[in-house]
This record gives sequence, structure tokens and C-alpha cells, in this order.
Amino acid sequence: MLGLMQNWPLLCHRIIDHAAIQHGCRPVISRSVEGPIHTTNYAEVRQRALKLAQRLERDGVQPGDRVATLAWNTWRHLEAWYGIIGIGAIYHTVNPRLFPEQISWIVNHAEDRVMMTDLTFLPLLEKLADKLPTVQRYIVLTDAKHMPQTTLKNAVPYEEYIAEADGDFQWKSFDENTACGMCYTSGTTGNPKGVLYSHRSNVLHAFMASLPDAKGIRACDVVMPVVPLFHANCWSLAFSTPMTGASMVMPGPKLDGPSVLELLEKYKVTFTAGVPTVWLMLLQELEKTGGKLPYLKRIVIGGSASPRAMTQTFQDKYGVEVIHAWGMTEMSPLGSLCTLKPEYQELSGDAKLDIQAKQGHPPFGVEMKITDDAGKKLPWDGKTFGRLKVRGPAVARRYFKDDTDILDEEGFFDTGDVATMDACGYMQITDRSKDVIKSGGEWISSIDLENLAVGHPKVAEAAVIGIRHPKWDERPLLVIVLKKDQQASKDDILGFMKDKIAKWWMPDDVAFVQEIPHTATGKIQKTVLREQFKDYRLPTAAA
Amino acid sequence: MLGLMQNWPLLCHRIIDHAAIQHGCRPVISRSVEGPIHTTNYAEVRQRALKLAQRLERDGVQPGDRVATLAWNTWRHLEAWYGIIGIGAIYHTVNPRLFPEQISWIVNHAEDRVMMTDLTFLPLLEKLADKLPTVQRYIVLTDAKHMPQTTLKNAVPYEEYIAEADGDFQWKSFDENTACGMCYTSGTTGNPKGVLYSHRSNVLHAFMASLPDAKGIRACDVVMPVVPLFHANCWSLAFSTPMTGASMVMPGPKLDGPSVLELLEKYKVTFTAGVPTVWLMLLQELEKTGGKLPYLKRIVIGGSASPRAMTQTFQDKYGVEVIHAWGMTEMSPLGSLCTLKPEYQELSGDAKLDIQAKQGHPPFGVEMKITDDAGKKLPWDGKTFGRLKVRGPAVARRYFKDDTDILDEEGFFDTGDVATMDACGYMQITDRSKDVIKSGGEWISSIDLENLAVGHPKVAEAAVIGIRHPKWDERPLLVIVLKKDQQASKDDILGFMKDKIAKWWMPDDVAFVQEIPHTATGKIQKTVLREQFKDYRLPTAAA
Repeated sequence: MLGLMQNWPLLCHRIIDHAAIQHGCRPVISRSVEGPIHTTNYAEVRQRALKLAQRLERDGVQPGDRVATLAWNTWRHLEAWYGIIGIGAIYHTVNPRLFPEQISWIVNHAEDRVMMTDLTFLPLLEKLADKLPTVQRYIVLTDAKHMPQTTLKNAVPYEEYIAEADGDFQWKSFDENTACGMCYTSGTTGNPKGVLYSHRSNVLHAFMASLPDAKGIRACDVVMPVVPLFHANCWSLAFSTPMTGASMVMPGPKLDGPSVLELLEKYKVTFTAGVPTVWLMLLQELEKTGGKLPYLKRIVIGGSASPRAMTQTFQDKYGVEVIHAWGMTEMSPLGSLCTLKPEYQELSGDAKLDIQAKQGHPPFGVEMKITDDAGKKLPWDGKTFGRLKVRGPAVARRYFKDDTDILDEEGFFDTGDVATMDACGYMQITDRSKDVIKSGGEWISSIDLENLAVGHPKVAEAAVIGIRHPKWDERPLLVIVLKKDQQASKDDILGFMKDKIAKWWMPDDVAFVQEIPHTATGKIQKTVLREQFKDYRLPTAAA
Repeated sequence: MLGLMQNWPLLCHRIIDHAAIQHGCRPVISRSVEGPIHTTNYAEVRQRALKLAQRLERDGVQPGDRVATLAWNTWRHLEAWYGIIGIGAIYHTVNPRLFPEQISWIVNHAEDRVMMTDLTFLPLLEKLADKLPTVQRYIVLTDAKHMPQTTLKNAVPYEEYIAEADGDFQWKSFDENTACGMCYTSGTTGNPKGVLYSHRSNVLHAFMASLPDAKGIRACDVVMPVVPLFHANCWSLAFSTPMTGASMVMPGPKLDGPSVLELLEKYKVTFTAGVPTVWLMLLQELEKTGGKLPYLKRIVIGGSASPRAMTQTFQDKYGVEVIHAWGMTEMSPLGSLCTLKPEYQELSGDAKLDIQAKQGHPPFGVEMKITDDAGKKLPWDGKTFGRLKVRGPAVARRYFKDDTDILDEEGFFDTGDVATMDACGYMQITDRSKDVIKSGGEWISSIDLENLAVGHPKVAEAAVIGIRHPKWDERPLLVIVLKKDQQASKDDILGFMKDKIAKWWMPDDVAFVQEIPHTATGKIQKTVLREQFKDYRLPTAAA
């Protein structure tokens, strides 16, 4: 027997409707790419998104078509998302920080029909355009006054484009499982993989992300998404902020310390979110200027692990609560947030930082398990680590254009991370599963060893990889870049690490190098490193 | 094109799974019907719910079967809900405060197969049992020690019943639109109507109810649902509390002032919800004992309008934030909550109370409109009032066993209430649409007139009904019950009201009566009143 409740599909454009009706006057403030600060509100964002939808439809954009955006966080980019999805087309955020050949690969794989771009990326696109045959039109997110000469096909300034529509238009209605958004993962191996969000998954994820123990955004908050719209679905902020009716402050192209600090102060931002690199720049600026953060209450730090000192500085020196978070493009992206459950409420000092070093607990709608290589579930004791697998309505089932699902027999997706779970349900990443060192059937965390090694005063950067070993299968090799003009021996380094880890975790050897290879997004390229050291023989291998 | 996200149906039993896994040790404390305080936790509640599910299935309870509960708020009642829905059966909460003939009508209409009951209601059921042919078994929510002799068919104590299952059982999985719960509205006219919630509607509603600007419950909260599980789906608390991982305190059968106060203090309750009548008893107890509410932070007041003095007393005297709320059984039930948007954040004193007198604003997932009788939308100016209509995934589409939908052409459900909407999206109920007086094409709020009249020091109760009028169609008649041993004339009363309302709102006459008729749940029975006065001729009718 079915229930007798209304059929009200979970469509993302209903979110901007809600914001326009219930929070219509709430400011949406942006640093424009052209320079000046621009102010609008949710009612206007919706009205202009309707114009875009109407205009795209007149241009022949069909349901299911991909419309790429290569753009910073501004009101126009926000309008673009809602305008695109409101006719059943798909926003496809492209990360401008990728290598040009990756960008063209992705655009071609997605078969994007329209490309919306900021002025910033015109030179890049003009060089690439020949390799992007599917793109029929370029919409430049600016007005006529700022529109430069360009060789791009059918290029038009956004403001002119939407001015050709009167906005007397209604969103389309359709199945909530309809594709809504697309984002490619920038893996360290193989080609990028496209994740295809649905309207349903984005709406449900926005609910999950908005819960009080997740982001907990209220209408009275002023939210600055420093994380770009092109980074992993913007951590849901383009949906959860209008859903809860908070104001938005969009930082545009300037994510340097002074620019971010200026917006935080001037617009009394209460909530922000971004990666550690950005916060490092902010903290340096604060240090330099003696600035304060009197309005900021909460900061979500994710993308990579928040350094303990960063968490501590934000909390103790600036009075800002840090919410460590973890997710993946495949998870829409939020998987866990490290807010404090009652068990941990009373902690302070180091004990509190120990908990906040964890990536947190999943909200309702994300299920987690850790398993060994054979898929056997491992205990939640805060020590045992295993492959982290996740399940939920906002987790990917399959990549775009693939023909098989990526789930185990229980329907879980393998995150590729290795993690512990503690008795209170807190997850902590200990490694990537392809980087963990498998020694005699036991796992050694490469990340733990790296974190330990960089604590040595002479070490600038460290990477640990597994080297084949006749007896133990794999043993750890520690690769070190020393700080400028510093010298150290293998024994110096290993002596420093001794007694801080289990004996069998100790690297079998240390290799000193000038440079460790990185991806475009700053991650250590362990595949390249493993290739470099593929013939390396450990001194212990002969034993 | 469809998205490529996981198929993860929104099933209510996933909520208790989440609570058991992520918040397993969190206390669930109840005042038992037998007397003593009982403590359990979410992990145990889930485990025992699994046993109940297993046992019900062995008893032949099928997906879609209705299992009635006639019970107070205790851990057993909570387990019962999850156990029932976990096999695809339907919890049907029966309100013990209804007249016995209404109860038997409802049970027969629902065709309940099993009845779970508290000890309290055994005498009632023993009298009714002959009239309940569909009920094949009575499960008494107690243990063997407290089980009395009873004539009820196949009666068994709950503890014995679930002890016959080992709990090695898995929840069923099915379409999220499967019926999950049932609650009849106790209308003032006609037969009760059954609302049939789905798993989807209950889960989505729990998300909506849990948003920070709605109930905003966190894992650190201690939540006491004073509102009974049998009252309008318990305002989602049986779902939203485990979803967010807060502790629960269940008041059992004792809702009097001293009992409620005892639990609030002893278990440091931070959040509670209930109807004004209960809070009146609590405030009287506090007044009498000089008690305080040091732990309680927020209180949701709904079911009927929160009196201004009550809101003020909780806030100013006891430091408890009042959240005025409105909903309907047909809405799962929450429609709006009166938390403060930025526009109203800085208000204090009377200006704040003026806003808090409103029923609040809908969360994402509830759409509202106000219309005239012809369905034309009316402006949101805080003054114009019209029929309040609602739409959303947790709003009823049709009543049980009816064969037509109850929606207008835009898919909205007519609440039967008359309301204003202000420019900030706040809704305020001004009347029931069947009670509003239609005078010369304009509407007069009977509730506004009643509220004004009871402000007269000699008036105990007031009711306003429309009386047919040859010129104006309808004109208001004010029906008054005077306080004991008081005397007043028509002119006294109307003189008091003069200048406080528009001239054309003034009642055409005042009728003094000994008693105003009420329903079982305490509402004024205006139908009966209209019947009593059906031949009444207004003094102005001849003019």
C-alpha cells in the first residue's frame, strides 16, 4: 500500500524559488571579475536565472545537454547553475586549475554544448577552442562594456544574452532523478571520471548538509563560499545557503589573504568554507596586519586535512569554531563533519584538538563501513584502519559513460581512502588505499609516516611509498626534500622518528631528493614517485 | 538523462539505524505507565524494534496492514513505531481522548489488525472490543508482572511477545512511497479522515523539521516530546530526534505541571514541544513553587495559538526561547515555525512579541499561498487574509479510502484556515475558513473578535458566528459566557470593543449563554452553535 502524500519532486530550482519567496531581499554580494563589488538578492538571482533558462531554451539547449561553466564564484555563476538546471540541462563545472589538455579532455568527454566562462579564462579557451568541437556557443560572464574581441564561436556577453529574454518563463518539471550537475574527479591516475548528480541527490544532500550538527546554516548567517563552485559541487553551498535563506558573499577571483579578509570584515561574514591553503594565506595576512575576525563564527575546513596548528589558531587566537570536514566529488561531496557530539562536548585543549583532527561523523543519509581487502567489516575502535566505503542517496553509483556500477555487493562505494572509525562514530582518514604500505599482511599508513617526518626541523617535504620486499611483500621507503641549505643523514631522520611509532612501521630506508612531483591541484603524485623508484632495492631486501 | 547516483530509498527505519550506529549510547528515558523511570538508548530501541518486527511478521502481519497504537509517549511506543514500519506495516496512532464511538469508528475504518495499548486503556478497550471485529490481537505495552486479567482477544504483554523473537532480523526494503503511518483528523464536522503518511514523506518532513531555523535539534540536545505520539504524528519528534541524535525524555502518562517540571529538571531537558494547555499547567506549577527552568533553551508551542502572555512569560521570566509553530495532521504536521529571520532579529519587547504571535514561516519543502474564494492569489502585506493553501512532499494528497484528490488545480491543499502572509513570508492564522464571517464580500475574522471580547474583565468565553443577513449576506453575532456571578449588558461589551476594531467588524448583536459547546479535544463547536442560533434574527436585519 502506498502513502497518500503529494507528488512533489525534489527539484533543485525549487530551492531558489524558496529563497526568492521566503528570503527574497537577502543580499547576494560578489566581488566581480571586472573588479567592483556587486550586490543583488535571491529574488533577482531567481528572476535572472529564469531569463537565462528561457534564453538557453530558445537557443536549442535540450534537457540532458551539458552546459560547462569555467568561472569563479559570483552571482552570475550562481544564476547560471539555476538557469541551466531549470530546463533540465546539466551544469558542468570545469576546474580552471587543471592542465589545458585535461580541460579539453573533460569538455570533449562531457560533450558540452555551451561554455559559460569568466573573462579570466578567455585566453585559455581561445587557445583550446579548436580542440572543443562540441561547444557551439561561448557565453562570457560579463556585460557589453567589458566584452573584449574574441575568436570564440558565437561569443556573447552574458548580460546581452539574458537581456534578450523577458523572464516570463516557468521552470520545467520532471522526474527528480533527472541529471542536474556534473563534476569530474581529478584523480592521480587514469583519465578524469565524471560524476553525474541528480536533482534528488543535490536536494537531499543540501538537507543533510544543512542539519544543525553538519553546517547548521541559519537565515541570520552570512555565508562566504571560498571553496569554488567548480570544486566538488561547491560543498553544497550553492544549494544549502539559499535553502536556509542565509546571505551570500561570493569572493570572485581573489582568494588571496588580503582580499578574503576584506570581505570577511566588510560584509560581516559569519560562516565560511574552503581548503587549508586558502586559510593559510588568511592566517598569514591576519598575522601580518594584526587583524581580527570579530564576525566569523564557524569555518569549514576540508579538501585536505586541516593541520592541527590551523585548527588551534582559528579557535584559540581568533575565536572561530573549526569544523573539519571530509568528502569526495563522488559524494556530492560531504561525507562527514567534525562537530562535537555530547561525548566530546566538554573537551578542551589538546584532547579537543585530537578529536578535531578526525574528519568527523556522517549525517543521516551517509552510511560508512571500513573493511579489509576481502571486504570483511572491521571494528570501530579508533585504531583499526581499513578501506572506507560509503552508501547513501547522494553517493555516486556509476561514472558518466561507464557501463558498470562501482558498488560492492552491499551497495557501498569504495572511497579509495583508508580510515579508522571510533566508538562514537567519528571517522579519521589514515591514508589512500593505493598508498598504504602492505607489510606482512598488516597495513602501514604512509600519511602518518609523512606527518611524522615533516616534524623534523630540517625536513621540507616527505613522501612515503611502498617498495617490493621478498619477505614482507612491501616495506616503506621515506622520500625526503630537505629545507634549503640543510643537511641530514638517514640516521638523523630515523632517529627522530624512533619511539614515536611501532617498530615495524619504521621506514626501511630514506631517499633524499631535490623535488617531489605534484599534480595540478597540489597533491603528491605517488604514481610518478613509485615509477621513479620502481627499481629501487631496499637495504633490507637481501636479508 | 538521469543522474548516476545511488538508489537509496528514504525509509523511516534507516533513521533508527542511523541513531543506533552514530548515537547508540544516547539515553532514551521514559516515565513508564507502571510508574518508575526507565532508561534505554537508541541501540537498544533499535534491537527491540527488530524483535517486534520479527515477531509481528511471524504473527502474519503483512506489508500494508495497519497496527493501531493507543499509548502514551514511552520507549515501548517508540519501538512499536519502528518495529511496525520496518516490515512495511503501518503504525496507526489512535487518540485516546476521542469519544469511544469515534475510536471504534476510526479503528473500523482503518481496519486495524493488531492493537498495541497501554495498561491505561484496557478498561476502555474491553468495553469497545465487541465493536472492533478487525482487531485479531491485543498487545499490552507492559511486562508479564504487570499484566492484568483481560477479556481482550489474544492479549499478550509486549515484553513476552518480543521475547519470543531473537532479533536476528533485517528490515524490509521497499519503495519509499510505501505507506508508513496513519493518523485521523478530529474534524469538527463529519467523520474523521485518515491521513496516510509514506516513508518518503516522513523522512523528508524530518529533514525539514530539523533545519536550524525550524526545530534545530542537535545531538547535544535533550528533547522531551510532551506532544503525544498520537497527536498529529508527534510533530515529527519520533523521527527528527533520532535523526539528529539527541537524547529523548518521554513523559509517559503524566502531563500535569509537577510531573513535567520534574522531568525537565531531573534530566536537564533543553528542548520540548507541546500544546498551550500543557504549558499553562507548567507555568502554574512554576509560579506555585517558585521553580526555574535553568536547562530548557527552546520550547515549541503549537496545536493552537500560543497566548501572548505565555510567550512573554517563558522568554522574559524563565529565559526560554519560544518557537510558535503551526501545522496540521495533513501536513505531517509542520507547516511553519516562528523563528526570527534577520529582518526581525533585533526586535525586543512588544515588537518581538508581535512577530512571535504569528505562526511563522515555512521551511524549504512547504509552499504557501493565500487566495480568495475564487482561488485568486492575494497579496503578502500582513493585512489581507485569505484561504491558506499548502503544497509539498509531506502534505496529504487524498484521504484514506477516498477516491478523489483534495488538491486545487495547482496541486495545493486547502488547510481550511484563513491567514495573512507578510512581506517577510510570515504567516498568521486569523480564522478557520468555515468560521470567517462574510459580510458584503469582505471577510471578518471571528477569532479576532473573540480574542478582543475575552479581554473584557467580565467575560469568561466568547464565540463569534455569522448570522444570515438580507443585505450583507452575513453579520457577526457575539456569543458570551460571563464569569461566575458577573453581569454585563450588550452595550457594556460592545462599548469595550469600540475603537479597537474597524466599525464594520462590530458584532450586530450579543447573546449571553450559560455554556458554549466544545469538542472532545476542547475546540469550540461552532457547527453546534450555528445550529442553536439558526433561527436567530439580528436586530439589524430589518433595517
